[in-house]
Amino acid sequence: MNSSGLDALIEALRCLPGIGPKSAQRLAYHLMQHDRAGAARLGESIQHALSAVRHCQRCNTFTELDICERCASPRRDPELLCVVETPVDMNMMEQTLAYQGLYYVLMGKISPLDGIGPRQLDLERLLTRATDGVVREVILATNYTNEGEATAHYITAMLKPRGIGVTRIARGIPVGGELEYVDSGTLAQALRERKSLGA
Amino acid sequence: MNSSGLDALIEALRCLPGIGPKSAQRLAYHLMQHDRAGAARLGESIQHALSAVRHCQRCNTFTELDICERCASPRRDPELLCVVETPVDMNMMEQTLAYQGLYYVLMGKISPLDGIGPRQLDLERLLTRATDGVVREVILATNYTNEGEATAHYITAMLKPRGIGVTRIARGIPVGGELEYVDSGTLAQALRERKSLGA
Repeated sequence: MNSSGLDALIEALRCLPGIGPKSAQRLAYHLMQHDRAGAARLGESIQHALSAVRHCQRCNTFTELDICERCASPRRDPELLCVVETPVDMNMMEQTLAYQGLYYVLMGKISPLDGIGPRQLDLERLLTRATDGVVREVILATNYTNEGEATAHYITAMLKPRGIGVTRIARGIPVGGELEYVDSGTLAQALRERKSLGA
Repeated sequence: MNSSGLDALIEALRCLPGIGPKSAQRLAYHLMQHDRAGAARLGESIQHALSAVRHCQRCNTFTELDICERCASPRRDPELLCVVETPVDMNMMEQTLAYQGLYYVLMGKISPLDGIGPRQLDLERLLTRATDGVVREVILATNYTNEGEATAHYITAMLKPRGIGVTRIARGIPVGGELEYVDSGTLAQALRERKSLGA
C-alpha cells in the first residue's frame, strides 16, 4: 500500500493467530478506512492490558489484582480446586453454574512437540497450591485431547502420592447427543465407562 | 476472564471484521499469554498509523505524504488513470507488472444497501482528477460484482460526456481456466465478448 506506517500495521496484525498476509491487508484497510475509532480503542486497550493485566498469584488467571476476585471470594468452596488449561476454559466452567469451588489455570498444556513440558508449565506452582492443606479434591478439567490427557496424567502422578484426591471430568455422549452422530471413539469410551443405575 | 482491562481488549478486538466474541477471547488470550512483544508492536503500529497515514491528494490511496510516491513518480504514464475500489486492488494491479499509468482509489464502491452513493464516495474528486487535461483514458478496474459494476456504470456516465476515453478491464475465462469448472455466467459472458482473431 506504499506507506511505511501502513506496512508496519499490516506486518503487526500478522501476530494474531490465523491472520495471513491477505487478511492482514484487509484488516488494516478496514481499520484505517472504516473504523478509526475502533482502531484507536484497540490500540489503547492493547497498551492498557499490557501494562495492567498480570497473573493471579493464587489461580494464575489474568487479573489486574494480586489475587483475583474469584480467589478472594468467601463464597467459593476452598476445598475444591478445578484445573483448566486456559481462562476461556474457566469461563466455560463458570457458565455451567454447576461449580462453586476455586480454580487453577495452567495457561497451557504439556505439549512436547511445542517444547512445553512440566517445567515450562511451572507445575511446581500447582503442587504448592494444591498442597496448601485446605484443598481436598483436585478436579482435572483439561481438554480430552492428547495434550490435555497427558497433562492430566502428569498432574495425577504428581498429586496422588501427596494424598490429595484427584478426579477427572467425565467423558461420554454429549447431552442431547445421538449415537448415530457420535464418533466411535467417544461411543467406545462411553460404553467402557458405563454407570450402574440406582435401584 | 475477570479482568476489566482484558474485557476491554476482548471488546476492542471485535472491531476487526470477522472476529466474533469467541475469536476475540482467543486472540486476547494469545496476545497476553504468548505474544506480548507482538501485542506491543501491534498497539504501537495502530497508533502510529492513525496519526501518520492519510489519503494521497491525487490518487486517494493511503500514504504518509501529501502526494504518494507513485503519483509523484516521473516514470508513470500520466495519460492513463486506472480506477480501483481499494488499495489492495491497486496492489494486485501493480503485481501484474502490466500497467505503467496512474491510479485513482475510490476507497469503496457504490452500495445503496450500505447507504453509499456517489456523494459518499466523493466521485466529484475523481471527476476533477480525470479532467485535469492530461488524462486521456480512464480504465475502470472495479470488481465484477454488482456493486463494482454499478460503480463502473456511474463513472462511465459521469466521464463520457466530458470527452474522456473510458475503458473497462476484460471479463472472461481466467488464464489457465478450464471450461468445465468455470461458472456458466462467466462462460456466457466470454462467449458474448468473444474476440476476432488476427489473420
